[in-house]
Amino acid sequence: MGIIIGVIGAGNASDEEKRISQEVGVLIAESNCLLLCGAMGGVMEATCRGAKSAGGTTIGILPGTKTSSVNRFIDIPIVTGMGEARNVIVAKSSHCIIAIGGGFGTLSEISFALKSQIPVIGLDTWDVSEDIIR
Amino acid sequence: MGIIIGVIGAGNASDEEKRISQEVGVLIAESNCLLLCGAMGGVMEATCRGAKSAGGTTIGILPGTKTSSVNRFIDIPIVTGMGEARNVIVAKSSHCIIAIGGGFGTLSEISFALKSQIPVIGLDTWDVSEDIIR
Amino acid sequence: MGIIIGVIGAGNASDEEKRISQEVGVLIAESNCLLLCGAMGGVMEATCRGAKSAGGTTIGILPGTKTSSVNRFIDIPIVTGMGEARNVIVAKSSHCIIAIGGGFGTLSEISFALKSQIPVIGLDTWDVSEDIIR
Amino acid sequence: MGIIIGVIGAGNASDEEKRISQEVGVLIAESNCLLLCGAMGGVMEATCRGAKSAGGTTIGILPGTKTSSVNRFIDIPIVTGMGEARNVIVAKSSHCIIAIGGGFGTLSEISFALKSQIPVIGLDTWDVSEDIIR
Repeated sequence: MGIIIGVIGAGNASDEEKRISQEVGVLIAESNCLLLCGAMGGVMEATCRGAKSAGGTTIGILPGTKTSSVNRFIDIPIVTGMGEARNVIVAKSSHCIIAIGGGFGTLSEISFALKSQIPVIGLDTWDVSEDIIR
Repeated sequence: MGIIIGVIGAGNASDEEKRISQEVGVLIAESNCLLLCGAMGGVMEATCRGAKSAGGTTIGILPGTKTSSVNRFIDIPIVTGMGEARNVIVAKSSHCIIAIGGGFGTLSEISFALKSQIPVIGLDTWDVSEDIIR
Repeated sequence: MGIIIGVIGAGNASDEEKRISQEVGVLIAESNCLLLCGAMGGVMEATCRGAKSAGGTTIGILPGTKTSSVNRFIDIPIVTGMGEARNVIVAKSSHCIIAIGGGFGTLSEISFALKSQIPVIGLDTWDVSEDIIR
Repeated sequence: MGIIIGVIGAGNASDEEKRISQEVGVLIAESNCLLLCGAMGGVMEATCRGAKSAGGTTIGILPGTKTSSVNRFIDIPIVTGMGEARNVIVAKSSHCIIAIGGGFGTLSEISFALKSQIPVIGLDTWDVSEDIIR
């Protein structure tokens, strides 16, 4: 069905991070790619809002077990109930990762992506490897 | 995006089980539901083939890390690398489960679904609860 | 360090199940085996109490992230935060499983153990295979 | 049973990293703490060798399903079959983490530990937070 772009970043994001995230979501949808994320708020919600505004499709990998807790722009909720272990799935299921800001959860996802040699594009995020495209 | 129907069953299935699976896949697609499964062969592959033949969309929850190992009818591969722990995700992400034949892996998925009070429809499968719809 | 015996069963157990569980715990400790379980109450707690009363060692595989929620007879808490996916770990880490009563969580663990060809001893539990030793 | 110290680092370690790891293992055992690690080679194996030489106890959280693949100094193998998702368990089950060198897998474990506010001691490892004790 095409390329899956994972977008990662904090559930608590600044207004500027949310603005960028929404724009990234629009671009992903306009490129006919699928957006995959961790299904929560902040960067994740803003990117999904952007993707849906441009007619895209969004996949959310939930840490919990309740689909009622996902952001309302998720089309396909994948329920893990595995807490932070779902970060592995977010990283490994993406053909490419875009990291926007982010805390230690985001850093774990960058680590798993780089370990699996999945390209990571960083927007004002962790600077832990020259392999991160800026 | 609508209802997600999980189809579970053995990777090694009989011809009759595959025939039923393919028919189930067609019905899921014709009902405009999404098909979710474990991404491997046998029941999973046959159901996906049916769904794709009727224009449906298929989601596969991979036990391994290589998308090259999924059956070729999967539109959206979700990569876990978590082995049999992915059975939890198959069960919990489905609004309804259809079990076709199956071995102990299928039984674990039925268990997780029933524990989460997700409806299970059984076609010639494990008889472990009166809650399984036959 | 020796043989690991997994004991599985419901968090809500009858008095009779708890009595049997405690006895099983004593026998495991007296056999110089390690007891492994899901760290919660009911069958798990009673078995651990028995093992500790006989000088044994107990390992608990936690579904949650708080060691404060485990039963007080756990020596070595392994924290997963993975919810029911920890059932896979309980099954696969044991050289032998003893199932006492139990609901669908227990059934999932029996399934994983049988799939991995780990011997299962059943005490008034699910009757899903002739391979379960009674 | 006491304090669990997690030691993390690469499976491919330099001679100097292995020397330090072994020393750390001795100190953990002499402090009557339990050593927990990812069960593989390199830093993990060297630390376990050190701990066993000083009469300590070692717990290994396996990524795979075969206990035959763990290093031979593991007393208690916990089998996950969950690949890199086991890194979450290594981080969360430790009262304190000691990171020695390491690649992206180690970085993911540092991330999970810091996110859970578990103290991290770093020996020539990733410099991603002022909270890492050097």
